[in-house]
Amino acid sequence: MNFFGGNKVYQKPSELRLACRSGAFKGQTSGQAPGYAQANLCILPKEYAYDFLLFCVRNPKPCPLLHVLEAGEFAFGTWGKKVDIRTDVPKYRLYRDGKYIQDLDSLISEDNEAGKSSIWQDDFVTFVIGCSFSFEEALVRGGVPIRHIDQGCNVPMYRTSIPTEKAGIFEGPLVVSMRPMSVADSIRAVEITARYPKVHGAPIFISKPQYSGLISSTGAIPEIGIVDINKPDYGDPVEIKDGEVCVFWACGVTPQSVVQKAKPSICITHAPGCMLVLDTRNDELSTS
Amino acid sequence: MNFFGGNKVYQKPSELRLACRSGAFKGQTSGQAPGYAQANLCILPKEYAYDFLLFCVRNPKPCPLLHVLEAGEFAFGTWGKKVDIRTDVPKYRLYRDGKYIQDLDSLISEDNEAGKSSIWQDDFVTFVIGCSFSFEEALVRGGVPIRHIDQGCNVPMYRTSIPTEKAGIFEGPLVVSMRPMSVADSIRAVEITARYPKVHGAPIFISKPQYSGLISSTGAIPEIGIVDINKPDYGDPVEIKDGEVCVFWACGVTPQSVVQKAKPSICITHAPGCMLVLDTRNDELSTS
Repeated sequence: MNFFGGNKVYQKPSELRLACRSGAFKGQTSGQAPGYAQANLCILPKEYAYDFLLFCVRNPKPCPLLHVLEAGEFAFGTWGKKVDIRTDVPKYRLYRDGKYIQDLDSLISEDNEAGKSSIWQDDFVTFVIGCSFSFEEALVRGGVPIRHIDQGCNVPMYRTSIPTEKAGIFEGPLVVSMRPMSVADSIRAVEITARYPKVHGAPIFISKPQYSGLISSTGAIPEIGIVDINKPDYGDPVEIKDGEVCVFWACGVTPQSVVQKAKPSICITHAPGCMLVLDTRNDELSTS
Repeated sequence: MNFFGGNKVYQKPSELRLACRSGAFKGQTSGQAPGYAQANLCILPKEYAYDFLLFCVRNPKPCPLLHVLEAGEFAFGTWGKKVDIRTDVPKYRLYRDGKYIQDLDSLISEDNEAGKSSIWQDDFVTFVIGCSFSFEEALVRGGVPIRHIDQGCNVPMYRTSIPTEKAGIFEGPLVVSMRPMSVADSIRAVEITARYPKVHGAPIFISKPQYSGLISSTGAIPEIGIVDINKPDYGDPVEIKDGEVCVFWACGVTPQSVVQKAKPSICITHAPGCMLVLDTRNDELSTS
């Protein structure tokens, strides 16, 4: 059983990718291909590629680049044998002018809003970006429990008041993911995730929520602009136990949020939780 | 006294940069502003910036990016207060169509081959790249002696048979720097430099030179294409003592070598050893 209670767990990344390609697998990838890295995807026309590449370079914590393909290239061997970027992700998300249009199972089928032709363009540049699933596995293995995994839901994510470093048309607030834990575990979590700079690295903030008796039980983290910790902007709220601190990591949703603001003519990402599964093992992404 | 026997050692990076700006300092920067990071510089017109940025992203060991400026931008605050990229490097090197033209003291004086106008262009994009001086300081402090420092000469550098990962017009062999040391020190050196991924990180190869009794004393490292360890392609040869291994690091000369092959219409780098001195301390570049 995987994290989300699904049935079949594909052990090999290549098997999962083939299942995506054939349409047999269209779900969330958490818990799939255990031990292997999963990645965020952002696909943009070449005209936006320099700005977005520079945005990633300037913001390595939310956008840790694993790989960038040539314009029009959809196959790559470095991170996964015989990957076809156009078909091997369970679900894609299509944006036009920064607006969400629809989810897609494939970028080369006719099943899209354009109707007649495939979405894939010869000038598309694909950015493969590290994902927190890799460090979550290291945390669990290191004895740090992860609340949203134990609760069987998605990690809570928040838009913060922390600006990213602008690059060309791309700018906007940092999005963070949050995992509550004991203070002792939070220190251990810093140690462990610091070794994974290619998948967001060490946390960016740690704090207890501030509860005001007068204004109900709203848990605020004012230093980073979070008004209510129980109302995440993406994902699901999780229980925060007495004495626990909230540990915040830079999140791979940041580029999606930034793209929506920059309004490129077209942009394709993975759908939330439906990642590209790589042949690279999570352990290969650690620095030591 | 600095490493090269010079007299005045500037303690503050800003003082050294002002001395470069006024023309009072035109020499090598090794040993200057002790404790502060120094950087390789590569300046290219915007039309080449995407390819070069991608080259750096794909080859982080030889080209660890510290900062990329906007097109035309020459001042930056992040890594050094009031830095003027056009004047604050002791000596620049000008290439046209991949050919070395001349060294320059400034990019905005008329003292250049064009004669009448300054070299600086509004479409220039400046890449600031980490430099091995930072990890050398960590090695010395960690008890690992550095031969070329002790001999008062430049580090030996070699073009290898290892290809870099191509990006657009930029491709070519990896250039490495070499420091001979005991096996025990080489292990310690891996430990220390692995913590400095922003300044080339861990070594890329370690080996004893192979001496053939029949063909004189030529010390070859055939695995990485080095024919004679005593004849470096850049820098100076250093003594290799009995029982010592040669430890090779990816080198910041790689981008210069690659630029010469790609032949962009114009390119400016720092002159060898004449680095941009930053306000960032070397220790700030370590991961732990």
